[in-house]
Amino acid sequence: DVAQDVNEGLIEEFLSEVDNVQIQENLRELTKVPHMATTAGDEQTVKLLLERWGDPESGLDQTWKEEYKVYLSFPDPKKPNKVTVVDSSNAVLYTAREKEKPYTDDQKDPAVVQPYAAYSPAGQVKGKLVYANQGKASDYQRLNQTGRNEKAINAAPFGVLGVLVYTDPLDINDGLMSDINETYPNSWYLPPSGVERGSFNTQFGDMLTPYLAAKEDTYRIPEEDITGIPPIPIQPIGFEDAYKLICELEGDPAPPEWQGARNCSYNFGGPGFKNTSAFNSSDVKLDIFNFQELKNSSNVMGVIRGSVEPDRYVIYGNHRDSWVHGAIDPSSGTSVMLEVTRVLGRMVKQGRWRPRRSIIFGSWGAEEFGLIGSAEYTEQYFTKLSERTIAYINVDIAVFANATLRASGMPSMQNVLFTAAKQVTAPGTETSVYENWLRYSNKTSPTHGEIPRMGYLTGAGSDYAAFVHYLGITSLDLSYTYDRTKTNARIYPAYHTAYDTFDYVDRFIDPGFVSHQAVARTAGNMMIRLADSLVLPLNCSDYAESLEDYLNRAVSLYEPKLKDISMEPLKQAVSSFRRAASHMDRMIHDSDLANETPMKARKINDQLMLLDRAFLDPLVFPDKYGFRHVIWASSSAGQSTFPGLADAFATANSTNDSKDWQKVHYHLSVLSQAIEGAAHILTDVI
Amino acid sequence: DVAQDVNEGLIEEFLSEVDNVQIQENLRELTKVPHMATTAGDEQTVKLLLERWGDPESGLDQTWKEEYKVYLSFPDPKKPNKVTVVDSSNAVLYTAREKEKPYTDDQKDPAVVQPYAAYSPAGQVKGKLVYANQGKASDYQRLNQTGRNEKAINAAPFGVLGVLVYTDPLDINDGLMSDINETYPNSWYLPPSGVERGSFNTQFGDMLTPYLAAKEDTYRIPEEDITGIPPIPIQPIGFEDAYKLICELEGDPAPPEWQGARNCSYNFGGPGFKNTSAFNSSDVKLDIFNFQELKNSSNVMGVIRGSVEPDRYVIYGNHRDSWVHGAIDPSSGTSVMLEVTRVLGRMVKQGRWRPRRSIIFGSWGAEEFGLIGSAEYTEQYFTKLSERTIAYINVDIAVFANATLRASGMPSMQNVLFTAAKQVTAPGTETSVYENWLRYSNKTSPTHGEIPRMGYLTGAGSDYAAFVHYLGITSLDLSYTYDRTKTNARIYPAYHTAYDTFDYVDRFIDPGFVSHQAVARTAGNMMIRLADSLVLPLNCSDYAESLEDYLNRAVSLYEPKLKDISMEPLKQAVSSFRRAASHMDRMIHDSDLANETPMKARKINDQLMLLDRAFLDPLVFPDKYGFRHVIWASSSAGQSTFPGLADAFATANSTNDSKDWQKVHYHLSVLSQAIEGAAHILTDVI
Ligand SMILES: [Ca+2]
Ligand SMILES: [Ca+2]
Ligand SMILES: [Zn+2]
Ligand SMILES: [Zn+2]
Ligand SMILES: [Zn+2]
Ligand SMILES: [Zn+2]
Repeated sequence: DVAQDVNEGLIEEFLSEVDNVQIQENLRELTKVPHMATTAGDEQTVKLLLERWGDPESGLDQTWKEEYKVYLSFPDPKKPNKVTVVDSSNAVLYTAREKEKPYTDDQKDPAVVQPYAAYSPAGQVKGKLVYANQGKASDYQRLNQTGRNEKAINAAPFGVLGVLVYTDPLDINDGLMSDINETYPNSWYLPPSGVERGSFNTQFGDMLTPYLAAKEDTYRIPEEDITGIPPIPIQPIGFEDAYKLICELEGDPAPPEWQGARNCSYNFGGPGFKNTSAFNSSDVKLDIFNFQELKNSSNVMGVIRGSVEPDRYVIYGNHRDSWVHGAIDPSSGTSVMLEVTRVLGRMVKQGRWRPRRSIIFGSWGAEEFGLIGSAEYTEQYFTKLSERTIAYINVDIAVFANATLRASGMPSMQNVLFTAAKQVTAPGTETSVYENWLRYSNKTSPTHGEIPRMGYLTGAGSDYAAFVHYLGITSLDLSYTYDRTKTNARIYPAYHTAYDTFDYVDRFIDPGFVSHQAVARTAGNMMIRLADSLVLPLNCSDYAESLEDYLNRAVSLYEPKLKDISMEPLKQAVSSFRRAASHMDRMIHDSDLANETPMKARKINDQLMLLDRAFLDPLVFPDKYGFRHVIWASSSAGQSTFPGLADAFATANSTNDSKDWQKVHYHLSVLSQAIEGAAHILTDVI
Repeated sequence: DVAQDVNEGLIEEFLSEVDNVQIQENLRELTKVPHMATTAGDEQTVKLLLERWGDPESGLDQTWKEEYKVYLSFPDPKKPNKVTVVDSSNAVLYTAREKEKPYTDDQKDPAVVQPYAAYSPAGQVKGKLVYANQGKASDYQRLNQTGRNEKAINAAPFGVLGVLVYTDPLDINDGLMSDINETYPNSWYLPPSGVERGSFNTQFGDMLTPYLAAKEDTYRIPEEDITGIPPIPIQPIGFEDAYKLICELEGDPAPPEWQGARNCSYNFGGPGFKNTSAFNSSDVKLDIFNFQELKNSSNVMGVIRGSVEPDRYVIYGNHRDSWVHGAIDPSSGTSVMLEVTRVLGRMVKQGRWRPRRSIIFGSWGAEEFGLIGSAEYTEQYFTKLSERTIAYINVDIAVFANATLRASGMPSMQNVLFTAAKQVTAPGTETSVYENWLRYSNKTSPTHGEIPRMGYLTGAGSDYAAFVHYLGITSLDLSYTYDRTKTNARIYPAYHTAYDTFDYVDRFIDPGFVSHQAVARTAGNMMIRLADSLVLPLNCSDYAESLEDYLNRAVSLYEPKLKDISMEPLKQAVSSFRRAASHMDRMIHDSDLANETPMKARKINDQLMLLDRAFLDPLVFPDKYGFRHVIWASSSAGQSTFPGLADAFATANSTNDSKDWQKVHYHLSVLSQAIEGAAHILTDVI
């Protein structure tokens, strides 16, 4: 029925059918073996997804896989990467571990990949060790502010030959470091030999096929044209090995902020070791044998076809590939997704439900290598997706920890998330996920008063990136997370290590899988609302509030220094947007859409759906691959305001070059036009 | 009514109400004074448009003007540009005319702008005259193949200081040149003093505000960053003056193809004049005082609001500004537009009609300076227009001549144009505009057999450019034109001169204004069909036929020379597109859309509307401003096939550089992905 609205009874059915034990069993199944992208373990998960989504009792309408041929980087199992200390006659004085220490059978699986830095070049280099690059304040700042990938890129111009990275227990283990009783398997903390793997590239998507889907015959740029990967070898090691080296370093003590958890002085390095050390005058040697390879990576896709508006898509996705067993990253998300599809699929198969709009599920491949599967998908289906997608929901790591909901997304998603979160009970409490969240993290909204604090998707940390930044699709990233009064860990300690296993989740992260269940219920509730509501539950006035917040910050930070560049057009644009949003809300409120021509609801829904597309500008960030959304693009200025403006201002303010001030003006014009354009989408259509 | 289809009776009413005398009176009114962009005459036409479209009896629902502050170029009325022959002591031996010779009061109007080359830099230069640049074969080819604007750009590197341009009677007057009896006011041919004005820039839109609407506070690039305008002074002159110079030139006779209508030898130049000439050893001197200025230019907009789908737009536009009186260019089109709006407006005001979809009329400003008004409009409303526009119809010069219809556009517009053209009687015949057209220009279609030949919009010759190339909107450019058995004139002889007047049209171009009437009827008929049809009359199988034609040509031209670059993905993409188009046609044919959910027709219409958007790639032509449509972009290779591929192949084939061959591969991948993406738009939506 074309006038049918969302059915609250059906949402209750959905919530009651989401089963924590099913999620637990999903996770057990998904994490039996390591399933790094394109390995045999990954192929097994492809099969699993196809089977589950093809199930006649609880599957989806259609399921298929889509392959891309993508550029990946692996260590050589026959020539493992080595980190050694060698003396002047090349005698090996010390060898860092090649593999993490086993505590359960999981770590013993031969498919556990050696810790490595994907896209580090191969190379054999040796030299004197220093701590934290050149030890300069500028390096410290850079190291502190930049991501993992940029360490080697920043280091190279200073004559550095290779880079070792490790995570200090102070940053990941709340200072604890003993595997006798303090670390896994005795707690959730990282054992001394644990090593965080990762991909050391700065852009997302397959590196050889920018803006083109990586099919067999697709044009590929020459490898030498790749930018954003390390120019020198880099290798991650555990803190146990790191301390063996750091505590022997010569030179001045590094500043207090550089000291870690270990009870030794972290010195800068002579360069090199103390002459009182057994390593005196020795070099550290890196033998890195990583190699790049074109491999077939699959996305698994599943669909529930919409009844009334099949040409409108609500998309839900997560990556499938892990570094090792990936129980949390990404299988907690995949377990949740499989439970959501099981319950929704069964409702469809039993004839209890068919959504108004189509729902697409995506199990993305090769995320760990740079969000590759999702990026290739958006490149291949760019126009279709941008014309038809209502929203994208990403649940990668579903449960970082079991304390509270965490969400980041476009402000227009806030309201539907709040509605859903109010209808789900928070595990371990008598209260709702919403109320629980409000306790942990909140802010004061001019319109709503005290509400939970939702973040923005300004980075490229998971598969939402291509949807947000390249396609301009209204998106949300959802998970359960920490009680920050209980831990300062940068992320859950087993992240990207061989300890991210079913056992780890089952015992330390979410015993009983009730936080997983809460995430599944919240996400599924939103999906049903997005798919079934007569008027899309996207709130443009909440978007206005965020734009006003960004504007206020921009005005107070920049206007006093702008001289003859006016911020008036930007102010006018934001107030046009607010006016248009209020108008839209009023129109929705004053309409009796179920009894008017169905074209009226469709018109309003198209306005809401396409709103974010107005913020795209494919030319404004020429140096940032895939970033086109002028409100949410990444920024290095560290200000919670319009990113292009913030970066341009930071540059101009430091150089005071008139060309740089012109760029500030340029970004102001881009923003004003985009925000006015978005307001035009919301105002009466003609 | 949501299921209402187009009403044929209403189309008949429209056709019968379109009045040739009204069009004649429109033209008389519009051409009373010169109305170059932003002059007082232009302001008068703004007022006229606002009045007509605001008329309570026959106006539109809403009318307004939108101003842009744009960068224009004018000669200085106080210091007219001068072309002289001066001897070594700077004595003036000859002065070219400053103004065209008056034959009617029109030429005497003080508002007639002196002939000039807009965007030619000011400058005073003198030197020896040569004919056709360096006289080399390569120059000849370049001169022959390229547009007016590139002449000075190409000349500068050869040490040329300034350029004179003129049009030879052989090219414009079928060889005739005497104003005693052969030329206007005795015929439509150009008098000896007639000079074609023009804008000498290569990109469209306001040059200072690429991709941003040129509002008051908009960021403007520095003038020195402008590309695509002449680096040296350039001035157009009449053939009378040109002959005074050419016939005195020293040097070898230019090749036969370079000889013109004048009965003298066109020599290359010594450089300079014959020593037997009175000009012996004299220089030609150019004193150019053009200046640039930011001026407010208006678009006038008018709207008829749609009843069922107000958020779908059918747009009809033409520029309003002329060089002088612009009776043909553009006022023939404006007169037609005003008659279309009068008849449609009256039908609306009398309650006889309201279109299903909204209709937008645009009277663009400053087209003559580089399609500025329409380009700024598309920049300002980019997202809104790209999401909602069904089609754009451009009628600039409505009547070049009174022989036959001429049309260029996206192939999907062919069918609705044919339908409309079959319902209109061709002036001076007993047959339809369609049958008449078929006699003048035809081709054999594999599907349809013999049909009139419709062209493609691969250039930027009028205001369709921003719609086609920047927005990817299905467009059509329409006019009445020549009997090519009767004239070889490059364009109607008074083009861009002071002779393009009401008198000229009334006596020589379209006495009785019946060709104008036929264009108004054909265009209006299409508009009603596009606005009212339940299923949009856009035929995707005709698009497939054009893609197949392009593919066949590309395969035969390029495949033998491509070695290890495969054309298979492109072949597959085109056949995917054909399959999807056939499927779409079958689905439309098999549906009973008036009795199914209205969402089904909307879905199909969205597929048809958005098809062309799939062909956009904002990054593929980085050096061509505004060109994003990978099928219809301009090309310099001179092949009727995919433009990016053709240009890349031409380069690679001439350099044989592997990087250039890689670009061929790149363009093949871009095309394959775009065409597959378009096929995805047409196939079942999920
Ligand atoms: Ca790619
Ligand atoms: Ca502009
Ligand atoms: Zn992940
Ligand atoms: Zn990860
Ligand atoms: Zn024109
Ligand atoms: Zn013109």
